[in-house]
Amino acid sequence: MINTLVEKIKKTNAPIVVGLDPMLSYVPEQIQKAAFAQYGETLEGAAEAIWQYNKGIVDAVYDLIPAVKPQVAMYEQFGIEGMKAFQKTVDYCHEKGLVVIGDVKRGDIGSTSAAYATGHLGKVQIGNNVYRAFDEDFATVNPYLGTDGIKPFVDVCKEEKKGLFILVKTSNPSSGEFQDRLIDGRPLYEYVGEKVAEWGADCMGDSYSYIGAVVGATYPEQGKILRQIMPKSFILVPGYGAQGGQGKDLVHFFNEDGLGAIVNSSRGIIAAYKQEKYIAQGITPENYADASRLAVEDMIADIAGALGKK
Amino acid sequence: MINTLVEKIKKTNAPIVVGLDPMLSYVPEQIQKAAFAQYGETLEGAAEAIWQYNKGIVDAVYDLIPAVKPQVAMYEQFGIEGMKAFQKTVDYCHEKGLVVIGDVKRGDIGSTSAAYATGHLGKVQIGNNVYRAFDEDFATVNPYLGTDGIKPFVDVCKEEKKGLFILVKTSNPSSGEFQDRLIDGRPLYEYVGEKVAEWGADCMGDSYSYIGAVVGATYPEQGKILRQIMPKSFILVPGYGAQGGQGKDLVHFFNEDGLGAIVNSSRGIIAAYKQEKYIAQGITPENYADASRLAVEDMIADIAGALGKK
Repeated sequence: MINTLVEKIKKTNAPIVVGLDPMLSYVPEQIQKAAFAQYGETLEGAAEAIWQYNKGIVDAVYDLIPAVKPQVAMYEQFGIEGMKAFQKTVDYCHEKGLVVIGDVKRGDIGSTSAAYATGHLGKVQIGNNVYRAFDEDFATVNPYLGTDGIKPFVDVCKEEKKGLFILVKTSNPSSGEFQDRLIDGRPLYEYVGEKVAEWGADCMGDSYSYIGAVVGATYPEQGKILRQIMPKSFILVPGYGAQGGQGKDLVHFFNEDGLGAIVNSSRGIIAAYKQEKYIAQGITPENYADASRLAVEDMIADIAGALGKK
Repeated sequence: MINTLVEKIKKTNAPIVVGLDPMLSYVPEQIQKAAFAQYGETLEGAAEAIWQYNKGIVDAVYDLIPAVKPQVAMYEQFGIEGMKAFQKTVDYCHEKGLVVIGDVKRGDIGSTSAAYATGHLGKVQIGNNVYRAFDEDFATVNPYLGTDGIKPFVDVCKEEKKGLFILVKTSNPSSGEFQDRLIDGRPLYEYVGEKVAEWGADCMGDSYSYIGAVVGATYPEQGKILRQIMPKSFILVPGYGAQGGQGKDLVHFFNEDGLGAIVNSSRGIIAAYKQEKYIAQGITPENYADASRLAVEDMIADIAGALGKK
């Protein structure tokens, strides 16, 4: 799957991923109204609203991008009905030929990590039958529990030709509380980065490992160091756009081959229709998906410009 | 809810929690057969099997214990149908008067953590209506992202009078890879423990904070230190039984009042019917739930004995 991701990035010339993190407050009124008319102001109605909203965005942008990253928390908050919308979204993105990164940030030990890996990336045996539950292509994973927590995910990835992005240095302001703590003069995130490189060493695709890392766009200097520590790991970079990261901050997350990173934007794309910039271009809530397409095009140009100047 | 948990522990004299982590391989054949006869060898059939298995165990032990801890990964691996079994299990345990600790180990930042907190502990507004999704009483949370990741959970807990157990020192062999790293001569888990105490300081119930910690039974010396660092935090202690922890290892996790810790056992209780010890007492797969009751009684006696000797 890492080979597929690399090919798609080359083909689209867009090292970006659209974060499908649908807050109900982002969903335009006409979609909410239609969903509530059909299912009432219920969990089912909310799930229908976020699913229709996602579908509109995916239809508008799928030919421009290699991948999407649905954030499962935004679906989980609506319970079972929300999880059905998550599954529909994953399946629909697959139909549209997109790589799906499940932003699930799971992490546990032994058989529990194995169960998460099964649910999100693998298959489960029931009697004589085999099923796949959520079936994303990549999953994000938390490293706090160490190798015991990661290995069961790696095992499933090897079998399924899928992949991981392991949290190394996250984009949020307080990520340094633990991640930046100095151990023999070096921050914890560097040790985690070294482990990611180690875990990924025997999980190589053609040019990159399918065991990648998450490093926030809001920390470009750290990105530069981690790029060197993990030369063969793809880096998933959140924090672009709404969180403050800009194209010029991203340069050091990429390798000399122009690859090695994929930059996420969520709100900046899916709720682009609320931005003055796109309203000034005639966007209304009715054509919210057109705003998402414009925002994707702008993001691609911003990153291409920054990489061109590298 | 921390007050309820403390009261129930006092009433039952059992500082224990039963981990409802149903692997399909634990479910006795007669239950699997009945479920598959009704729903086929499908995700729905598997979900029915683990739900019926759980129900049997809960019916057999609910009067002896204060709380249960369903591990969501074991349900998530069966997709939507598995999550329905998770929800049924949570609801049924509530009907039986049990405190439910959702072992979900979620953790993200800002609005994403808020969405997880909403889904597992809080309520969601849809139009003019308010719903609760999974509605556990406590949730386990991963601290790697720092205060940004924890605060949204704490906010929901304050509003809902619910609680958290934050991973500090986990029970697995490789937990030390990152958690034991020395920062100015002290391991990372001590800093995390200090933060748990700080986050919990303005979240006090009558005698304990509702912001607790997870510290593995397999690390009793670390438990002793963390008990002192977090005197007002309840400690959820996994790793007893199947993972190797014994009653005598648990003494230092408790305060002088005999409270402050709750010890989890999963496989040792729910799959007790497979143990020689209980087979020798006449247990068969048909009365697996009786074995679980015997195992709970043995665990209570083991811990009471150890605490008595403190």
